[in-house]
Amino acid sequence: MNFLDKPREACGLFGVCGHHETSKLTYFGLYALQHRGQESAGIAVARDKKIIEHKGMGLVHDVFDMPKLEQLKGGSAIGHVRYSTTGSSILSNAQPFVVHHIKKSYAVAHNGNLVNAYSLKKELEEAGSIFQTTMDSEVFLHLFVKNLKYGFEQALVETVSKLKGAFSFVVLTGKGEVIGIKDPNGFRPLCLGILNGNYILASETCALDLVQAEFVRELDPGEILIISDEGIKSLRSKVVANRSFCIFELIYFARPDSTIFGQNVYLTRKAMGRCLAKESPAEADLVMPFPDSGTYAALGFSEASGFPFEMAMIRNHYVGRTFIQPTQSMRDFGVRVKLNPVKELLKEKDIIIIEDSIIRGTTVKTRVKALRELGVKHIHMRVSGPPHRFPCHYGIDFSTRGELIAAGKSIKELREFLGLDTLNYLSLEGLLKSTGIDDPENNFCKACFDGCYPVKFDESLSKDCLERR
Amino acid sequence: MNFLDKPREACGLFGVCGHHETSKLTYFGLYALQHRGQESAGIAVARDKKIIEHKGMGLVHDVFDMPKLEQLKGGSAIGHVRYSTTGSSILSNAQPFVVHHIKKSYAVAHNGNLVNAYSLKKELEEAGSIFQTTMDSEVFLHLFVKNLKYGFEQALVETVSKLKGAFSFVVLTGKGEVIGIKDPNGFRPLCLGILNGNYILASETCALDLVQAEFVRELDPGEILIISDEGIKSLRSKVVANRSFCIFELIYFARPDSTIFGQNVYLTRKAMGRCLAKESPAEADLVMPFPDSGTYAALGFSEASGFPFEMAMIRNHYVGRTFIQPTQSMRDFGVRVKLNPVKELLKEKDIIIIEDSIIRGTTVKTRVKALRELGVKHIHMRVSGPPHRFPCHYGIDFSTRGELIAAGKSIKELREFLGLDTLNYLSLEGLLKSTGIDDPENNFCKACFDGCYPVKFDESLSKDCLERR
Amino acid sequence: MNFLDKPREACGLFGVCGHHETSKLTYFGLYALQHRGQESAGIAVARDKKIIEHKGMGLVHDVFDMPKLEQLKGGSAIGHVRYSTTGSSILSNAQPFVVHHIKKSYAVAHNGNLVNAYSLKKELEEAGSIFQTTMDSEVFLHLFVKNLKYGFEQALVETVSKLKGAFSFVVLTGKGEVIGIKDPNGFRPLCLGILNGNYILASETCALDLVQAEFVRELDPGEILIISDEGIKSLRSKVVANRSFCIFELIYFARPDSTIFGQNVYLTRKAMGRCLAKESPAEADLVMPFPDSGTYAALGFSEASGFPFEMAMIRNHYVGRTFIQPTQSMRDFGVRVKLNPVKELLKEKDIIIIEDSIIRGTTVKTRVKALRELGVKHIHMRVSGPPHRFPCHYGIDFSTRGELIAAGKSIKELREFLGLDTLNYLSLEGLLKSTGIDDPENNFCKACFDGCYPVKFDESLSKDCLERR
Amino acid sequence: MNFLDKPREACGLFGVCGHHETSKLTYFGLYALQHRGQESAGIAVARDKKIIEHKGMGLVHDVFDMPKLEQLKGGSAIGHVRYSTTGSSILSNAQPFVVHHIKKSYAVAHNGNLVNAYSLKKELEEAGSIFQTTMDSEVFLHLFVKNLKYGFEQALVETVSKLKGAFSFVVLTGKGEVIGIKDPNGFRPLCLGILNGNYILASETCALDLVQAEFVRELDPGEILIISDEGIKSLRSKVVANRSFCIFELIYFARPDSTIFGQNVYLTRKAMGRCLAKESPAEADLVMPFPDSGTYAALGFSEASGFPFEMAMIRNHYVGRTFIQPTQSMRDFGVRVKLNPVKELLKEKDIIIIEDSIIRGTTVKTRVKALRELGVKHIHMRVSGPPHRFPCHYGIDFSTRGELIAAGKSIKELREFLGLDTLNYLSLEGLLKSTGIDDPENNFCKACFDGCYPVKFDESLSKDCLERR
Repeated sequence: MNFLDKPREACGLFGVCGHHETSKLTYFGLYALQHRGQESAGIAVARDKKIIEHKGMGLVHDVFDMPKLEQLKGGSAIGHVRYSTTGSSILSNAQPFVVHHIKKSYAVAHNGNLVNAYSLKKELEEAGSIFQTTMDSEVFLHLFVKNLKYGFEQALVETVSKLKGAFSFVVLTGKGEVIGIKDPNGFRPLCLGILNGNYILASETCALDLVQAEFVRELDPGEILIISDEGIKSLRSKVVANRSFCIFELIYFARPDSTIFGQNVYLTRKAMGRCLAKESPAEADLVMPFPDSGTYAALGFSEASGFPFEMAMIRNHYVGRTFIQPTQSMRDFGVRVKLNPVKELLKEKDIIIIEDSIIRGTTVKTRVKALRELGVKHIHMRVSGPPHRFPCHYGIDFSTRGELIAAGKSIKELREFLGLDTLNYLSLEGLLKSTGIDDPENNFCKACFDGCYPVKFDESLSKDCLERR
Repeated sequence: MNFLDKPREACGLFGVCGHHETSKLTYFGLYALQHRGQESAGIAVARDKKIIEHKGMGLVHDVFDMPKLEQLKGGSAIGHVRYSTTGSSILSNAQPFVVHHIKKSYAVAHNGNLVNAYSLKKELEEAGSIFQTTMDSEVFLHLFVKNLKYGFEQALVETVSKLKGAFSFVVLTGKGEVIGIKDPNGFRPLCLGILNGNYILASETCALDLVQAEFVRELDPGEILIISDEGIKSLRSKVVANRSFCIFELIYFARPDSTIFGQNVYLTRKAMGRCLAKESPAEADLVMPFPDSGTYAALGFSEASGFPFEMAMIRNHYVGRTFIQPTQSMRDFGVRVKLNPVKELLKEKDIIIIEDSIIRGTTVKTRVKALRELGVKHIHMRVSGPPHRFPCHYGIDFSTRGELIAAGKSIKELREFLGLDTLNYLSLEGLLKSTGIDDPENNFCKACFDGCYPVKFDESLSKDCLERR
Repeated sequence: MNFLDKPREACGLFGVCGHHETSKLTYFGLYALQHRGQESAGIAVARDKKIIEHKGMGLVHDVFDMPKLEQLKGGSAIGHVRYSTTGSSILSNAQPFVVHHIKKSYAVAHNGNLVNAYSLKKELEEAGSIFQTTMDSEVFLHLFVKNLKYGFEQALVETVSKLKGAFSFVVLTGKGEVIGIKDPNGFRPLCLGILNGNYILASETCALDLVQAEFVRELDPGEILIISDEGIKSLRSKVVANRSFCIFELIYFARPDSTIFGQNVYLTRKAMGRCLAKESPAEADLVMPFPDSGTYAALGFSEASGFPFEMAMIRNHYVGRTFIQPTQSMRDFGVRVKLNPVKELLKEKDIIIIEDSIIRGTTVKTRVKALRELGVKHIHMRVSGPPHRFPCHYGIDFSTRGELIAAGKSIKELREFLGLDTLNYLSLEGLLKSTGIDDPENNFCKACFDGCYPVKFDESLSKDCLERR
Repeated sequence: MNFLDKPREACGLFGVCGHHETSKLTYFGLYALQHRGQESAGIAVARDKKIIEHKGMGLVHDVFDMPKLEQLKGGSAIGHVRYSTTGSSILSNAQPFVVHHIKKSYAVAHNGNLVNAYSLKKELEEAGSIFQTTMDSEVFLHLFVKNLKYGFEQALVETVSKLKGAFSFVVLTGKGEVIGIKDPNGFRPLCLGILNGNYILASETCALDLVQAEFVRELDPGEILIISDEGIKSLRSKVVANRSFCIFELIYFARPDSTIFGQNVYLTRKAMGRCLAKESPAEADLVMPFPDSGTYAALGFSEASGFPFEMAMIRNHYVGRTFIQPTQSMRDFGVRVKLNPVKELLKEKDIIIIEDSIIRGTTVKTRVKALRELGVKHIHMRVSGPPHRFPCHYGIDFSTRGELIAAGKSIKELREFLGLDTLNYLSLEGLLKSTGIDDPENNFCKACFDGCYPVKFDESLSKDCLERR
C-alpha cells in the first residue's frame, strides 16, 4: 500500500574525498537524504586501492550500525539511498554497484533513468559481457571498462556521452577518486560542498547542512567533476542540451530546507501557495494541509488569503511502514491510523485544503470523506501545481503506473470524484513564475504536466525494457 | 539520550469486551496510544477461561504482526504500552501482567504510580508471597488474590481501597470480564467507549477514534467499572478524595486530537498560546515551535499576536530512535539530525519560539545556539506553562531525575543559560484559566509547579523504594 | 519425531562454588551433560548478593556465547540442561528457576520428578501463593520460603522432607552458597568434585573430567550438601528409604565415560553384552549395534561370542535435529538420513544386532526392514536389558506415553512385529549381576521392568497432575 | 581452530533432471554429501526458462527450510556444498554460480581446482569482461559464453578442453538440461544414478542411496554428460590424459558407505588396516581409533592382529562447530570437549592407535598427551597411509598450508614430537595394493605422498594466483 499516494523519487547520492571519517560522514549524508529513497542503502569506501562496501534493504539506520561503519574505514566514500525505478526491489540491485577489473575497483551510485539502457546492454551482451543486475549503474560500468583503452578521463567522457536520459552519478575508484556526473539536461540535482578542505557531493544541500559542510555550487548540466587528492577537475560530456530541471523536485521531492536549482525550496513552495491564493481564492474558516505534503504552500496560501492556518489532522508519529489490515467494520482505517482529524476544530466549518499534487487520488478521496463525516461544511481544495497528465521517463515512479487520475478526467469530474465543493490547480504559468528562476519556460522539464519530453526515447525499446523488469 | 529532552509518560491502556476481533482492536487502540509509552507493548486475551498473552520490547508494530494477533483470538482483550517509571526496562516488566491462580487467570495493565507499593509488597513477602517483578501491577494482583476470600467484587473494592497514589488499571479475567479502575483523585485519564454494543476502555479518546468507537464518558475518580457479557456494573473505592487531574496531560502528554478531563487538547493548547501572547507579548518577524511540542500553543500565540506562524525547523521524518555518535568535528549534531533550520527564512530575523515545557534545558540550549549561528537576530522564548520546579510522584519520569533546570535557577539565570534575549512562562493562573474547566484550582494536580502534593507519601519508604529499582 | 525412538532423560545439573570463572566452568560442565537434556539450558550466578541468570531454548552452545558468559560473572554458579518431563516445553519453564524474596535471591535446578508436586502446589495456592510455572522447582521454592521462619538450614531439611519422588536439586543463594540435594532413594546421580580447592556438583563424572576436576564422591541418598566459602556441611532429610538407583542410567542414559553408582558405565555395558552372549547365543558373520546406542554391549557380545564387531551402518554426522519431510517416493527416509547400511558388508550375511532397549519399536522395525531389502540373510536381535513393560514415574519420559511396545506383546509377537529371525532380552538377574554392585536386588529401581515402584504415588492425583500439563 | 586437524575437501555436487520434486531431492542429496563441505550450501532450479536459486553460509539444514524449498520448484536442479579452496569464505562465493546472458540462464557448481584459472581470467578481463567473484566456476562461465558462437554442445567441448587441473562440474541451463563434467584425469568422483527414470548426478554413491536412486556408473575421465528430457548424451574433452584418481578420497574424504573408483570405501579401509597390521605389528591390550577417522582401518587392524577393538574415547555428540575458549587452568580442553578417554579401560594398558593421516600433528600430540596423563603404558601409532609430504594443487586444502608435519621431519623425529612409543606408516605399495584396483600405480594421483603431479602448473602464475586470494 502506497500510503501517501505520492510519487516516489529514485535515489539520493553522497560522496566525500579525503576526510578522516568518510564512512560516518556518508552515513549522516544519507540520513539527510533518506526522503529520496527508503528501499535500500549502501556505502562504499576506498582503502588500500580496494573498495569495501556494505548495503542492505531498508532505511539507513537499519542497514548500518557502528561496527559496520568501523569496517568501512577508507579515505574516500560514496553512498546511496534508493527507491527502485528500474531493476527489481532486491538486495542485488542495491547500490553502490562495485566491480573489480584487472586489479582495479570501481563503485557507482545513480539517481535517474537512462532511456537507452536496454539497447546499450544488448550490444554489450552480444559482445560477450555477462551482466549481474538490471541496473543502469552496471550498464555505465561495462561501457566504461570497454572505454578504458582511451585512458581514464577520456573513458569517462566517452561513456557519459553515450548515455541518454536523466542521470546523476557519483563514482568511486579504488585509488580514492570521487567523480560527480550530471546529465546534459541537468534533470536531477547534484551539488558540491566543502568541509575542512575536503570536497563533498550530495543530491541536496540539506545533506551538506547536516555534516556542516559549506555549499560551493551545483554541478553544471553535462559536467564530469573529478575530485582527488590533487583537487577538482571538471570535464564535459560531448552532448549539449537545453536545461530541463525537474520541476517536481521543487514542488514535492526535495526537502524544504534544501536549496536546489538556485532556489530555497521552503520559500519557493510558500510562493506557490501565495500565487495559488491569488489565482483561485475561496472563503473559509481555516486553511490546512494534509500533513506533511502541502504544508508550506498552505502557509503561503494562509498568508496571502488571511485565513488562519491550522494543523487540523493529527499525525501519529509512530506509524510503521507496514500495516496490519483492519477489520471489515473499520472503514477508512488507512486514513485514520496515520492522521486523525480534530473534530472540535472542524465541525460545521468551511475549510481550504492545500495539496501539492494528486496522483492516484484515492487517499485524497478517503480523507475528504472522513472530513465530511465529521461534519465539515464546505471543502475547497487547492493544488500548488498543474494536473499530472503524463508519465515521467526520467526517474519518477509514475512512469510505469498509468494511474494518473488527472490524465483521464476533467477538473469537474475530478472534483466530483474526490467529493469536493471546489477544486483548483495552480496554472503552469503561475508555477513557473513562483520558482523565481529567470526564463523558467526554458529551464525546466515539465513533461508530466504538458507532455513535452526534453530527451527522446524509442517507445518500442522502452516497452521491451519495461517488460524485462 | 533523551532526544527531545521531554518528560515521558508512564503508560497507555486499552480494553475491549465481547467484540469478535478483540486482539486486532486492541492492537489498533495501542497504536493510537503509542505516544504514551514506547518501551514495550503487550496484549492479553481471554479464551476458554484461559488468558493468552504476547508482549515484547519496542513499538506496537514491532512487537505484533498478523500471525501473532491470530494466535491472540479471544472474546475479551486488554493491552498496554509502557514507558517504565517503576520497575526496570526489561521484558519481564512489560505488561499486561498475567497470573494463574487455582485454575483461574487474571491479567492487569497499569498507568500511574502507587506511592505505597513498597510497604504493601513488604507485608506480602513477609507472609510468604514470592514476587516475580517490581511492578505495581503485581502488588495489585497479590493483594487481590488474598482478598478473593471476600468474593470477586468485594475483593476488587478492598484491594483498590488499599492502594495509594495515581493509578488507572484495566484488568482482564479468564472468564472475559474487563475491569477499568481509576484512583480516587482521578490523576490519569481513562475513558469508556462503545462500538457496535461492545464496551471499550482507553486512556485517551484518540484510541476510540481510530477504532471508530463512540465516546461514552470518562471514568469517575475512584470508580471500578466491571464490563462483562451482562453489561457494565460500577463499584466505588472506599477512599474518597478531591479531584486532581494531571495538568501536564493537557499541556504535553495527551494527543491534541484527544478529549480528556472534558476538554479538547488542541483547542486547550491554542488557548494557552493565546493567553501567553497576552501575558508576555514580544515584537518579531515570526512565531515558531520546535516541532512538534509547542506547535498548538504557537498557533494560538500567532493568532493572538498577529505575527506569522512558520515551521522554520524541518524535521527529518526518518530519524530512528538510536543514533550513531557523530564525529568530533560535527558539533551539535544531535540537534541537526532531527531538525534542520531553514536559513533563508531565519537569517537576520527576530523570532518568537513557543515551548510547552523546559525540563533539563539542554536540548533547548543547543537549538538556540544553532539558530544564533545561522544569523537569527533576536530570540524570544515563551513557554505555555509555569516553570517545572518539583518532581512528580504520580507516574511521570521526572520524579527520579533531580534534573529540573528551573528548580535551581531564576528566570534570568535560565534565560542566560539558554542564550535567549527574553524568556517568559505562562502564569499558573493563566494556565488554569486556559483549561476552560470550572474551579480549576480544585480540580488539578499541579504539584510539579507548586509542590502541593494531593496524595501524601512516606519520604523514607519512598527513598527505599527508589533504591530498590 | 523422536528419531532414535529412545526415552529421554529429564535433566543435567552442575554447580560450582568459589572458582574465579564460574560461569565458564558451568558452561563446560553443561556441555558435557548435554546428553541429559537438549531442550533448554540455563546458568545462574551469584554476584553482590544478587543472582543473575541467562537461559534459552536449545543446546548449550546455542544458548550461550562469550558475551553472555562475560555478563554472568559471579563467585558461584549453577547450571541446568533440560528435557521436559513436567511443565511444557517453553522458555518460562527453562531452569535454573530464580526468585527474589525479601532482599534475598535463590535459584534452583532440578533433575527428577516429584510425585506429590500437585498436592503441594494446591495447598500453597489456597494459602495465597501465586505460581509462575508448572515446574517442581517452583514448588520447592515456595515451600522453602514458607519454611524460612525455621532458619536457613532447617528450612532446607523441612522442605526436602516434604518432597516425594525422584529428585536431585542444585540450589544457589544470592550469598553464593551452592547446595546439592538428593532424594532419600537416590534415584538420580549427583556427584561431588573438587578443582583447585573449589567444590563442584555434577550429575555425572564426565562433567568433572571435562573441567579437569577431581571426583570426590557421590552424594548419599537423602543428603543435603551445603557448599560455601567455609567449606561443606552435610545435612539429612528426615525421610529414610531404601536405595533405588535408576538402573536405566547404567543401561542407557549416562555417558559411557561416566562413573555412577560406583560403576564405570562403559565396562558395565560391556559386561551386559558378555552376559547376553552367554544367555542367548547365536551364529552369525558379524555383531553390530545400531549406532550409538548398544555399541558397548555389542563390543562385549563380540568379545564373548568371537564374532567380529562391525560398524555396519554409517552415521551422517551432520544431521540436524529437525528434518524436512521427504517425498512420498522416499520410503523409510527417516532411517536413511541418519544411518546408511554398508551393502557390500551386509549382503548375504547372518548378523546379530545389539540394542540396549526397545521402547516403541518403530525405528527398530524400519531399520530391520532396510537391512532385509539390502539382502541380509538372518537377523538376530539381542537386547542388553529386560523388556520395558511399566511406565516410569520418576522422571523418564515414557511415564506418559503408554507406548511401551513390550507392555502389550509377547516376545514372539514382538519378534514378528520387528521382522527378526530371533529376539532375546537379557534377564533381570543377568542385568543386575552385570552391574557389579553388591546386593543389586535391593539397590536399584527396576520398576520399568517389574512394576515394583519404590515410592508410592496417589494414582488419582497423579492423573490430575498429568491433565493440567 | 581446525578441530580435527584434518584436511578439508572442496565440495560436493548433486544434480537431477526431470523429477517432480527436484529441490527436495537435491536437498537430501546435499545432506548426504555434507561431509565434503560445510561452509556454504546452495541449490539452483530451472523453471520457465529461468533459474532460481538460494544459497547461504552454513550447513544444508541451516541454509534451507521447507518454505525455501517450496520456492525452489523446478523441473531440474543442481546443488552444491562447499568448503572453500579458491575464493574467500564469503557468501558471494557460495555456489551454484548463476548468470543470465541474452535471455538465457546458466548455473554451475564445481568440485576441484583449476590450475590455469588465473591466466584464463586475465585474458578475459583484458578483453573487457567484468568478473564478480574469484571462483573457478565463473571462469568456466565466461569462457563458455564466449564459445557459444560455436553452438551449445561445441561450446561445452571447447570450454572444457581449455581447463587444466582437477574439476568435476554440474551445470544447469534455464531450459532444464543438467550437465556433468569430469576432468580428463578423473581426479574427483562423480557418478550417475537413476530414480524412476530420472537421471541424477552426485559426487558419491551415498547421496544416491539416501534418495533411493540406483547407481548406474561413474563418469569417465574427460566425459561431458548432457542430461535432458530426451535422455543422456555423452561428449568428450579434446584433452586426453592418464587416470589419476585422488587416493586420499579412499583413505579419508569419501564416506565409508560410498563406492568410488569402483571400490567400497569401508572395505578398502579395512583392507588398509589389515595390511598395516601385517606390515607393522605391535603387542597391545587393545586397538582403538581416534573417532571417527581411522575407525575402519582400526577394525581391519584388530581383525588381522587379534587384539580387541575398543571405542576408548567417548565422543560428545553435541559439540558445536565453534567453541568458547576455556580458562587458562583447563589445559588441552580442545581435546576433552570432543573426546573423553575412558580411564577405567585405558589405565596401565598398552594400546595401538590407528590414524588415517597426520597433517599438522597438533591434535594427535595433545590427545596422546591426554592418554599418557591417564596412565596408559605404551602407545603405538599406526597410520593407514604414507606420510603426507607434498601439497595438493587439485582441490584439497593443504595446498596452501605448508604445515605438513611429515614434510620436515623423519619418522623418528615425528614419533618423538608426538610422544609415541612406536610410529609406523603404511607403505605406498601396501596402500595401492589395498585399494583392490588393477594397476593402481597408473590409476591414482598420489602426489601428496610422492610429489609426482599428474597435471603441470606454472609455479609463478600459481603464486600470483594465490596472492590474489
